[in-house]
Amino acid sequence: MIKNDLFLKALKGETVKRPPVWMMRQAGRYLPDFMALKKKYDFFTRCQTPDLATQITMMPIDQIEPDAAILFSDILVVLQAMQIPVEMIDGVGPWIPNPIRSQADVDKAIIPNIYEHLGYVMDAVKMSQQELSNRVPLIGFAGSPWTLLCYAVQGKGSKTFDVAKAFCFSQPKAAHDLLQKITHTTIAYLKGKVKSGVNAIQIFDSWGGILSPEDYQIFSWPYIQKIIDELKDEIPVIVFGKGCWFALNEMGKSGASALGVDWTCSARNARYLSGGQVTLQGNFDPSRLLSPIPEITEAVWKMINEFGKDRYIVNLGHGILPNIPVDKAKAFVDAVKSYY
Amino acid sequence: MIKNDLFLKALKGETVKRPPVWMMRQAGRYLPDFMALKKKYDFFTRCQTPDLATQITMMPIDQIEPDAAILFSDILVVLQAMQIPVEMIDGVGPWIPNPIRSQADVDKAIIPNIYEHLGYVMDAVKMSQQELSNRVPLIGFAGSPWTLLCYAVQGKGSKTFDVAKAFCFSQPKAAHDLLQKITHTTIAYLKGKVKSGVNAIQIFDSWGGILSPEDYQIFSWPYIQKIIDELKDEIPVIVFGKGCWFALNEMGKSGASALGVDWTCSARNARYLSGGQVTLQGNFDPSRLLSPIPEITEAVWKMINEFGKDRYIVNLGHGILPNIPVDKAKAFVDAVKSYY
Repeated sequence: MIKNDLFLKALKGETVKRPPVWMMRQAGRYLPDFMALKKKYDFFTRCQTPDLATQITMMPIDQIEPDAAILFSDILVVLQAMQIPVEMIDGVGPWIPNPIRSQADVDKAIIPNIYEHLGYVMDAVKMSQQELSNRVPLIGFAGSPWTLLCYAVQGKGSKTFDVAKAFCFSQPKAAHDLLQKITHTTIAYLKGKVKSGVNAIQIFDSWGGILSPEDYQIFSWPYIQKIIDELKDEIPVIVFGKGCWFALNEMGKSGASALGVDWTCSARNARYLSGGQVTLQGNFDPSRLLSPIPEITEAVWKMINEFGKDRYIVNLGHGILPNIPVDKAKAFVDAVKSYY
Repeated sequence: MIKNDLFLKALKGETVKRPPVWMMRQAGRYLPDFMALKKKYDFFTRCQTPDLATQITMMPIDQIEPDAAILFSDILVVLQAMQIPVEMIDGVGPWIPNPIRSQADVDKAIIPNIYEHLGYVMDAVKMSQQELSNRVPLIGFAGSPWTLLCYAVQGKGSKTFDVAKAFCFSQPKAAHDLLQKITHTTIAYLKGKVKSGVNAIQIFDSWGGILSPEDYQIFSWPYIQKIIDELKDEIPVIVFGKGCWFALNEMGKSGASALGVDWTCSARNARYLSGGQVTLQGNFDPSRLLSPIPEITEAVWKMINEFGKDRYIVNLGHGILPNIPVDKAKAFVDAVKSYY
């Protein structure tokens, strides 16, 4: 049994004495120990070496003490497994040397055997669970099919992902074929993670917010819904769509256990738009962690009051920024623990 | 009298036979003639030479025939006038060699004499009006104080403007002093444009959407409201806040003649959130102009049906992208003209 089960209780909608807290990218660049490992091993080596991924997963658990761990990995390992090579270039970000631009490119992508191509993730899950020894639950994650398509087609990060959108709007069949392949792979991948021992999963739709509500229902949401349908009876599923306030209504009816919201959507709007019943997660502006600590504490308490302590998981509205001092990240977590 | 006054009628909320149409950045890089001039003259030379600014302003009027012209210029000329030097570097974007980082930096910025420092804009307005000879109305514009602060402090473009936000959250007095100075300058600048002959003005809050609703009410909205208060009795004011759906309620009560919305906010949500009375402008996804022309035409008609033909100005939800073929931009405008 997991000793601190606040997070799982909130996902079930049970009454809690205070909401649980964790931070997106809590195992990330704001931690000096993470930066030390980063100097020694490149990005995908850290992802692909279970011992390193476990060490990184544990860093915030030991140093910041949130109520959940999230496995250190990257959404793009799924593309790599599909034989779409991805590199990570320092100062640039993800780089896909041969981006998908045609039906022929889509046809070349494989639906991989998960244990063969992503076995290292399964090993990292098992090793992290051993290391955690039931202190807090472990979250596994995947990118949404749309978000993975964005990278696979654009070939790198972008503000507008205009090449990816042009591909969808001018070659919709190829786009849907690719989304379908990514969806199949992701379902198998997440089922593998569940078997390996994660306690919840989160789907990151990091680029859903660049679509119109109508295009979101064509190119992103149906594939996320498919993943939820396949997973929800096995494990709690959290969906986080950055900038996707306009889809909270569909998300609220999807069977997801919780919905992530970013800081542009007030608690009141988020509760209203999502239908008021589903657990919400978020939504502190990551930049607001640059405020003085007393202001952070006060703002966290205010946020909890606005969302309500039940059916709520405290988190940031996006990943923690690399320039946040560790003591401020700790102050964020501590503010939740001192809420009464 | 202006021959085609559809745009002004829509701003007044009058009944029209079809809504007017123009496109943000319609005088931009998708036009081959613009690219030809770009090879000969650098960015700020084009802004600062009234003859060139006029030529560029006229390009879409002659080639695409929208129902309004918008003066070719840049929001950052206001910072330059305040003695905060701004360069434009090809492939990088705006570059501020000495970004504002302290109260001392803020104190050094001047509130300029508009006619002395931005006289070239006033000349470009007059020259463009001569050239237009009452074919369509001319829009003048300015960036919102918050958006200008983002560039002045960050020093360049950014996805998160984390340095600008850190400045506001850790040195709020300096931030508000800077916002105040920019607001004063912007009011004088826009009044100058009105005197020089523009027929409407638009305020671009391009980065308002990175603030939480609460911080938006602290760092952005009050300054835009001040500008509206000073201008609205002289001229129709349009406010466009990219990603600012959460502030449409305040905007709807502000005295602005129209509100711009981006493509993530449906017509129904935009009408509801803004109170249902104010003219709305938008919100075609710029990337959707990469669709085949028959799909563009159909989508434009659908959009007009959803917003309704009155109290509505057809536009994109953000600036037109450089990679849009001219015939598709023309198809967008033509679709509106063929609406019945």
